[in-house]
Amino acid sequence: MKKIYLDHNATTPVHPEVAEAMMPYFNDLYGNPSSVHSFGRETRKVVEDAREKVAGFLGAQHPAEIVFTSCGTESDNFAIKGIACTLNRKGDHIITSKTEHHAVLEVCHFLEKKMDYKVTYLPVDKYGIINPEDVKNAITDNTIIISIMHVNNETGVIQPIEEIGKIAKERKIVFHTDAVQSTGKMPIDVKKLGVDLLSASGHKFYAPKGVGIIYIKKGTRIFPLLHGGSHENRRRAGTENVAYIAGIAKACEIAQRDMKAEGERILKLREKLEKGILSKIKEVQINGHPEKRIFNTLNISFNYIEGEGILLSLDSEGIAASTGSACTSGVLEPSHVLSAMGVPAEKSQGSIRFSLGHQNTDEDIDRLLGVLPGIVERLRAMSPLWEDKIKSIKKI
Amino acid sequence: MKKIYLDHNATTPVHPEVAEAMMPYFNDLYGNPSSVHSFGRETRKVVEDAREKVAGFLGAQHPAEIVFTSCGTESDNFAIKGIACTLNRKGDHIITSKTEHHAVLEVCHFLEKKMDYKVTYLPVDKYGIINPEDVKNAITDNTIIISIMHVNNETGVIQPIEEIGKIAKERKIVFHTDAVQSTGKMPIDVKKLGVDLLSASGHKFYAPKGVGIIYIKKGTRIFPLLHGGSHENRRRAGTENVAYIAGIAKACEIAQRDMKAEGERILKLREKLEKGILSKIKEVQINGHPEKRIFNTLNISFNYIEGEGILLSLDSEGIAASTGSACTSGVLEPSHVLSAMGVPAEKSQGSIRFSLGHQNTDEDIDRLLGVLPGIVERLRAMSPLWEDKIKSIKKI
Repeated sequence: MKKIYLDHNATTPVHPEVAEAMMPYFNDLYGNPSSVHSFGRETRKVVEDAREKVAGFLGAQHPAEIVFTSCGTESDNFAIKGIACTLNRKGDHIITSKTEHHAVLEVCHFLEKKMDYKVTYLPVDKYGIINPEDVKNAITDNTIIISIMHVNNETGVIQPIEEIGKIAKERKIVFHTDAVQSTGKMPIDVKKLGVDLLSASGHKFYAPKGVGIIYIKKGTRIFPLLHGGSHENRRRAGTENVAYIAGIAKACEIAQRDMKAEGERILKLREKLEKGILSKIKEVQINGHPEKRIFNTLNISFNYIEGEGILLSLDSEGIAASTGSACTSGVLEPSHVLSAMGVPAEKSQGSIRFSLGHQNTDEDIDRLLGVLPGIVERLRAMSPLWEDKIKSIKKI
Repeated sequence: MKKIYLDHNATTPVHPEVAEAMMPYFNDLYGNPSSVHSFGRETRKVVEDAREKVAGFLGAQHPAEIVFTSCGTESDNFAIKGIACTLNRKGDHIITSKTEHHAVLEVCHFLEKKMDYKVTYLPVDKYGIINPEDVKNAITDNTIIISIMHVNNETGVIQPIEEIGKIAKERKIVFHTDAVQSTGKMPIDVKKLGVDLLSASGHKFYAPKGVGIIYIKKGTRIFPLLHGGSHENRRRAGTENVAYIAGIAKACEIAQRDMKAEGERILKLREKLEKGILSKIKEVQINGHPEKRIFNTLNISFNYIEGEGILLSLDSEGIAASTGSACTSGVLEPSHVLSAMGVPAEKSQGSIRFSLGHQNTDEDIDRLLGVLPGIVERLRAMSPLWEDKIKSIKKI
């Protein structure tokens, strides 16, 4: 049985061209980019070429604005802690939202609880979208950073980053966006977005797990998260992961080339999936905005049953999906994202995230649509909630 | 012309068996280890098996004491900042030494200058060795962590970690060692060393650049450096670099298997190199302890000339060596390690580090010994210092 992977927001396989681009740096070209001899010069050039490519891909003005990190989480930690530490004499107030990834939320909790910073967690509307006016109103004289994600990992909802960027610029506040779920999927232009800092992660767009990017706008003062040697223009100490850096640059190149066609193809698959579920299964709701949503993500609640049950049943059919962020799987609390959107706990617990990618085909969607209605029916037949519902209908 | 690499303390090539061990996780097995479906379970097992292997290799009591990081620098930052932050109510004093790697020194400088911690930088003797009595005498009621490296990256000198471990234990102070240059080269037993925290880096022993280890003794309270998801037993957020984690575990396995034979073989090569230089070139001094020194490292000063000149001449012969730490190459200051040992600036600037490894052969040493005397002679012929020296001898 061919396994079907519909969890691309959790991680993606390495693109064969990316794998190929990395191979020379495991064995043949292994110098430390900081070394002055020929072994070092060879790999230094690889890193600097990659930096230039990534800078172009993100619309950065200078390659030096790009720093390679070990993951999106590191980029987020670096951005927020770095600014908090640098500007602690200017103020102690951070603005973020309730639906951020844990790599932002947990940093904020840490700064709040351990370091006495004040954090405003902005609400979202029922679609999961932040109102830029709320950002404006939350700003105080002590605000030092605004951190709002570009695309939500659970729902795929796209935030109004450009509008928030304008507000931040006007009020001269450092603006960071966690663009882990958008980079490589949709066009990113840091200048157009108006951000000072942007986080991205390789493994969300066909580069390996273990490499990230942070864009730091020229002139932004920020303390490093990793102190040590003078790597990465003194922004991030640690010997450069040459292979993965070459890999993420190649992934950017591929994304730039294939983004439009693949985006359109995958959107059609998602629409087919969405329509299929809505027509075949009753008592379901889509979580997230109908239009302001990235093309590959469908988050949907199946009333009266647990997402976990659906997931396991799908898994036994060789189909991989998710109940939310992979980073918090195993945790049985309802999704903080759906809660913030006002989705009641019982509906939130019945939610499934399908996130599509390169290797998905029409046949994958057909197979999913073939098994899903039966799975939902079986689970509902065992659900006391569903039984109550049937009884109440019969009474009427 | 075959190129000769004698800079293994800067970085090493990936061992072919390590490369092989990583390959499945780029394409075939790509699940996020946090995902609950089969794709995730497959890679979760890889990470947990690797953790168990590394734990065994380091003599840890529990696999959960091993946390995978992105590099030795991250491990060092995590250890020191994590403890500083966790114990900031207990005290504000850190003990380290003057000859640590920049990944420790720069963290200490940051904590000192920006966070108001107090740091004692212990001296070393003329061989580069720390006196455990100095550690004992430096301890105050406010001391929260002692961080002393195991093997020095520039000289190869081995510090008395066991003795310092006993002192730390007696005084109940958290003890961290940067074992980046020893792990994979010599046997490490965290219990015997008496450390609470130990940092290691994959690319120093034939795993790729971009993966590190931190050992955290069970019961050690420490704040994470990377906040976010609940990866790595809540010690280090960020999607696990499955491929490199499999790689570093394989590198540990290979080290365990080959360490003794390779250590003896490489020691013989180094002795040949050392004796060869001492017999063929006058006015040279070995930097570091004659015996308490790791088998692969030779740091040697060539009086009256600049190391940089020797390095470039060797490079043009296809031979790679170093003037010190790769992380600070390009910086023209004299080595902080040699300065701390009392080596005068002019001798320190004429120093070269040869660090040997797996692929080096007898022929490599012959070729180096064939060209080095000529290079030194040519450089001395152009050196005003050498000219003065000759004149002064003639006067006598």
